[in-house]
Amino acid sequence: MPATIGLVLDCADAPKLAEFWAPALNFVNVWSGGTYVLLMDPSNVEPRLILQQVDEPKSAKNRLHFDLHPPDVDAEVARLEALGAQRGEEITEHATRWVVMTDPEGNEFCVCSAPTE
Amino acid sequence: MPATIGLVLDCADAPKLAEFWAPALNFVNVWSGGTYVLLMDPSNVEPRLILQQVDEPKSAKNRLHFDLHPPDVDAEVARLEALGAQRGEEITEHATRWVVMTDPEGNEFCVCSAPTE
Repeated sequence: MPATIGLVLDCADAPKLAEFWAPALNFVNVWSGGTYVLLMDPSNVEPRLILQQVDEPKSAKNRLHFDLHPPDVDAEVARLEALGAQRGEEITEHATRWVVMTDPEGNEFCVCSAPTE
Repeated sequence: MPATIGLVLDCADAPKLAEFWAPALNFVNVWSGGTYVLLMDPSNVEPRLILQQVDEPKSAKNRLHFDLHPPDVDAEVARLEALGAQRGEEITEHATRWVVMTDPEGNEFCVCSAPTE
């Protein structure tokens, strides 16, 4: 049986960042303990996301980031901005439109028009 | 309808790193174009993983990383080492055992005994 996949995001304030990422991903906050907050899809679809509070600050562009593929890019970008994300540059490549955004701690992610096939 | 979730990993050599991550995640290499390689679960379960070749080198611990939850941690760690991963420290916390590993480009990920509930 293959391993199931989870994700861990280092952050400065896990409960506060959970207030962004739970609604951003349409996940629910299911568990908090120590320096961790666990967010999951309500249907328990992978991947789970653990927010892990760490001492070191973010120091470079994240090497791994989320691409979110909503039915409506502009509506999703507006929804995420209202939740506290910042909108950055926009890129069109390989017939896909990417809007680069950052979460409230500056973590990069993209909102994209369609999965690249 | 919520957005579907994809992931993008910056790397120095996308085709070469795909040779690690495709078998590591039990994904298949479904598409390459320009500086991108797309890996997907054969059943098209989320998340997809895009390997994106970039100019800048890795400069800090990744802020976002994978936690893999296999049925057998030791067997999975050995399998990933054989694929080219390096084994790092081991942590037990909240009744979960994590083995910290790095991929062939030094990207951190963990192999864990069970999802934290």
